[in-house]
Amino acid sequence: MEKTCFDPVLRVAICGGTHGNELTGVYIVRELQKQKMDKLGPVSVTTVLTNPRATDACRRYVEMDLNRCFTDALLSSPTTDGTPYEVRRAQELNVQLGPKGSEEAVDLLIDLHNTTANMGLTLIFYSLDWINLHIYKYIQSKMTQVPVRVLQLDVASADAYSLESVGKHGFAIEVGPQPNGVLRADIFNMMKTAVDLTLTWLQEFNSGHTFEGGEVEAFTYVKSVDYPRDAAGEITAVIHPELQDNDFQPLRSGDPAFLSFSGETVKHEDGEEFYPLFVNECAYYEKKIAFHLARRTTFTLPSIGLRS
Amino acid sequence: MEKTCFDPVLRVAICGGTHGNELTGVYIVRELQKQKMDKLGPVSVTTVLTNPRATDACRRYVEMDLNRCFTDALLSSPTTDGTPYEVRRAQELNVQLGPKGSEEAVDLLIDLHNTTANMGLTLIFYSLDWINLHIYKYIQSKMTQVPVRVLQLDVASADAYSLESVGKHGFAIEVGPQPNGVLRADIFNMMKTAVDLTLTWLQEFNSGHTFEGGEVEAFTYVKSVDYPRDAAGEITAVIHPELQDNDFQPLRSGDPAFLSFSGETVKHEDGEEFYPLFVNECAYYEKKIAFHLARRTTFTLPSIGLRS
Repeated sequence: MEKTCFDPVLRVAICGGTHGNELTGVYIVRELQKQKMDKLGPVSVTTVLTNPRATDACRRYVEMDLNRCFTDALLSSPTTDGTPYEVRRAQELNVQLGPKGSEEAVDLLIDLHNTTANMGLTLIFYSLDWINLHIYKYIQSKMTQVPVRVLQLDVASADAYSLESVGKHGFAIEVGPQPNGVLRADIFNMMKTAVDLTLTWLQEFNSGHTFEGGEVEAFTYVKSVDYPRDAAGEITAVIHPELQDNDFQPLRSGDPAFLSFSGETVKHEDGEEFYPLFVNECAYYEKKIAFHLARRTTFTLPSIGLRS
Repeated sequence: MEKTCFDPVLRVAICGGTHGNELTGVYIVRELQKQKMDKLGPVSVTTVLTNPRATDACRRYVEMDLNRCFTDALLSSPTTDGTPYEVRRAQELNVQLGPKGSEEAVDLLIDLHNTTANMGLTLIFYSLDWINLHIYKYIQSKMTQVPVRVLQLDVASADAYSLESVGKHGFAIEVGPQPNGVLRADIFNMMKTAVDLTLTWLQEFNSGHTFEGGEVEAFTYVKSVDYPRDAAGEITAVIHPELQDNDFQPLRSGDPAFLSFSGETVKHEDGEEFYPLFVNECAYYEKKIAFHLARRTTFTLPSIGLRS
């Protein structure tokens, strides 16, 4: 049978606190550091609290969103006194874990995030990557009690703006719903299990195990929808109760999308059926995003194993 | 039949944004202002965004928690250049809506709050107050689809630290769970319904209706419980899944209270059965409170009506 072969995945980075008020990743990284989890068989594990100033302040960021700073343009921009803290921090992280796109970059970069949306456990990454997708397939097969999904953003590497794009392979693990600044045990356990399963997968892969191919369901980002707003830019409506908490459920033209403060329903209008996600994510109010829309698709994975 | 009589309740203040990231009250106050809801029959309604700087920043507070600033001591403290913004703002609000404890104070002050805890709709106030408790009984009788409860803090007026203590009568309406910085339609509708019912009750009361007495269930604050912490003061555990979201359900000695980051269950130990509330409230991490404990009790209300 055909098999796609890869070099061993030996250098892994597990990152948390890229958004300082998404606490699950912060505490998982601290716990791994406490347990001195830096070597697992042949795999070296680097754990990084990526935005310590934002974490200390329990805010998403101090000057700008760190997880929008990993484009080639920002990573290579000259720094001045006026350069935001997060741009300087992104460049430091790129030195430590990258450089992005180079042979020196870590083999796999996992960045841990929370959302206030009812997203369950979602792996997010950019271009098609069989390692990422096989890890997703593995996690999904083991975590049968919670919804495990994958979202592909399909942005070219140079424009890929988030931390996981610095690794040769990599993904964000997004788990919710959890309020910012709060730690829930259920969310903690979901994310910790996903991290542990990733490390188990790596050990099996590096020891020569062949992972069989097959089909996986995936979502691909299409576009974003803003809240209804008045002339001053203030929102005039909230997510409709029928859409709230219904991430990854089909949204059709005519379905209720918003409920105005005075009580009127605003319907969704679109020619195509899409899947909403990041519905009512706290941090997206300022980004003018009420929810994203995605397409559901199926990826056919090859069997993969070690290059001999 | 015996009846306790009161003067009409004619001057009402509805306040939001005392915590700037608890958005439901902010948007209800803005909506009432947009609708120019300043007179309802003989009742004058004052709507106030109480902490505009914190609201603009979408943070709980700027320099200190405004809702701890309404003690007699802070309200009468001389201001200097170093006085925190919120202390100055509390003194301004005391001039506008009080002075606390005086004949000039508004008759009823309602302050709108959110919590990340699964509290449903909870009215919170200080000493026993038949007006407050009759409004609670009325709201509870009308809102049968959601849990409506009351919490009495039993703090002397001089030490009462929150905004509602400035009115002759008054309570906070606390609705959750909702993440800070997020607006949920279900939470918005619950709080808006409670505000509307309060105004309806006032109209009936002022028009001479007698409200029959009876018994109501209530919770009275007993004490607070902190998270397990290490020598450096860092938390070492989160709320246990069996306690999470179970506000107002009895907690007995031996019940699981916390789950440590390394996976051990920490049991609750106490000689008496209490009712936990504000379980995993975001803002209480810095206050070193994992949850409050309360006693369940029954208050017997007299019938009340207008003084003739």
